[in-house]
Amino acid sequence: MKWAILSTWKMSFQGNLEAAQQLANHASAGDAAVHCIQNVEDNPAFQSVGYGGLPDAEGHTVLDGGFMDGDTLRFGAVGSIEGFRSPVAIARSLKDTPFNNFLVGPGAEVYAREHGFEERDNLTAESLARYQKEKNRNQELYSYDGHDTVCALALDDTGSMCAGVSTSGLFLKKKGRVGDSPVIGSGYYADSKIGAAAATGVGEDIMKGVLSFRAVMYMRNGMSPMEAAETAVRELKTELEHRLGSCNSVSLIVLRNDGRFGIGTTIEFPFVYTAEGENPALYLASPSGDGHTTIRKIEDHSAVTQD
Amino acid sequence: MKWAILSTWKMSFQGNLEAAQQLANHASAGDAAVHCIQNVEDNPAFQSVGYGGLPDAEGHTVLDGGFMDGDTLRFGAVGSIEGFRSPVAIARSLKDTPFNNFLVGPGAEVYAREHGFEERDNLTAESLARYQKEKNRNQELYSYDGHDTVCALALDDTGSMCAGVSTSGLFLKKKGRVGDSPVIGSGYYADSKIGAAAATGVGEDIMKGVLSFRAVMYMRNGMSPMEAAETAVRELKTELEHRLGSCNSVSLIVLRNDGRFGIGTTIEFPFVYTAEGENPALYLASPSGDGHTTIRKIEDHSAVTQD
Repeated sequence: MKWAILSTWKMSFQGNLEAAQQLANHASAGDAAVHCIQNVEDNPAFQSVGYGGLPDAEGHTVLDGGFMDGDTLRFGAVGSIEGFRSPVAIARSLKDTPFNNFLVGPGAEVYAREHGFEERDNLTAESLARYQKEKNRNQELYSYDGHDTVCALALDDTGSMCAGVSTSGLFLKKKGRVGDSPVIGSGYYADSKIGAAAATGVGEDIMKGVLSFRAVMYMRNGMSPMEAAETAVRELKTELEHRLGSCNSVSLIVLRNDGRFGIGTTIEFPFVYTAEGENPALYLASPSGDGHTTIRKIEDHSAVTQD
Repeated sequence: MKWAILSTWKMSFQGNLEAAQQLANHASAGDAAVHCIQNVEDNPAFQSVGYGGLPDAEGHTVLDGGFMDGDTLRFGAVGSIEGFRSPVAIARSLKDTPFNNFLVGPGAEVYAREHGFEERDNLTAESLARYQKEKNRNQELYSYDGHDTVCALALDDTGSMCAGVSTSGLFLKKKGRVGDSPVIGSGYYADSKIGAAAATGVGEDIMKGVLSFRAVMYMRNGMSPMEAAETAVRELKTELEHRLGSCNSVSLIVLRNDGRFGIGTTIEFPFVYTAEGENPALYLASPSGDGHTTIRKIEDHSAVTQD
């Protein structure tokens, strides 16, 4: 079976590369996806995930994460959790209990502490400075840029698939706000019999369209990964423009269980894809006017300025 | 346009009846659904919702709720919120903000307090006694019975639809556990162009199948409400039995935008349906061996022992 790993944003390049090496050495999809994501969680240069993530309206770096095992449909998720290194690792461990798979707030923190997950205050001097600058500049704290979730979809050489996601959510989000990332169906979905999908962008709009599950259903109905991703995003954008006047930025990655991928996006969106027999590569996806996605490989990474 | 309201469990009978009277007098779908649900939230005789709801593992009555407006696809949700009367009312108000639609834990409580939602400790002498009895009986606190969510799907005479849900979640759930009820796509979904759906049962399994959105998609693809509900539940049950050995109890209510309804269930499941020109009626849905649902009208309510 051909292995593959697909991940969001340029910031996931190094993690994707390392995870691909693991998959080539017969690692499980779950281990590879979590490794890819943790590489981003641990790097304070990336301002929207884990260490150095964007603070909420009260200046706290509060995280969301989710994980789904495509073989069993088991999932785990944490929402609004503060003080831990790796939301995706906690989410992954939660999938193994029969109940209580989605924990939020102080309860999620109790679980993580009791299970020995590494603690870490994810607020850095840089993220605090960014918070204070924005807070001083804008009294209404109405800033929703830079909400980039790291998502990884992995297929291993046994045919197992998974989806993992991790984010600090919207910059200056309200206390207790949970985005799409820990919400199964919206932020992520994986079924090894079909494929997997995960989303990044404004969670409130991603959730209105239940984007990840929608794309997996479209693949089940026979669409290619690219058609499934494009159609899911195009439908949401069309419906929200029609009903609400606009659709915020959303991007969707899709990986079919044969290793082929698809992308749907309303904005320029860098992503990373590696598969057996191919070198890790950074790509830039762009929406075309007709609801399709144009994809080009980026040889010179410095040409992509977004993380 | 014909109006209709469909709600879960016998406990919703009085609320459904009153909401139907409102719909007959041109109330909005949102007002009617919230009225139906609040009638259950306020009644301590019903042990799985609102006042008198089932406590969590620490003896606190902690609630989840969700609401979706089928015209705009806007939604609001609260997870793991303690000390307020009506989770569904708070969820409904959250749909009107552009971001931060899903709030959990202490952040949700701050929002509710700031917006003047009525506070109430939902633990009653009866629910405390039930907690203490179960805690003494079973040191492992592994009891997941009586997790009945009140869901209401409404269609008003302008053609607008909505979905609302409210629950205290699993009895003896872990601190911070969130079920399917506040999770869009799983616990509820509504699109006035198609129809609405909502779920009750073990949330962890409902979420694995993203049941509510799945059923709405099936209606969009041309299935009748009954086929959509039956197919969504049958597929989940089959997949989980195949992959995990068993599927916990789940029930799904579906209302199409012409007022016709459908039910999918793995257990005997009472529900209430009223539509223009029909008297409010209690029904009992039962799974038949072939994955279909048998429905019969219950004239003598005392014949149904489940709330």
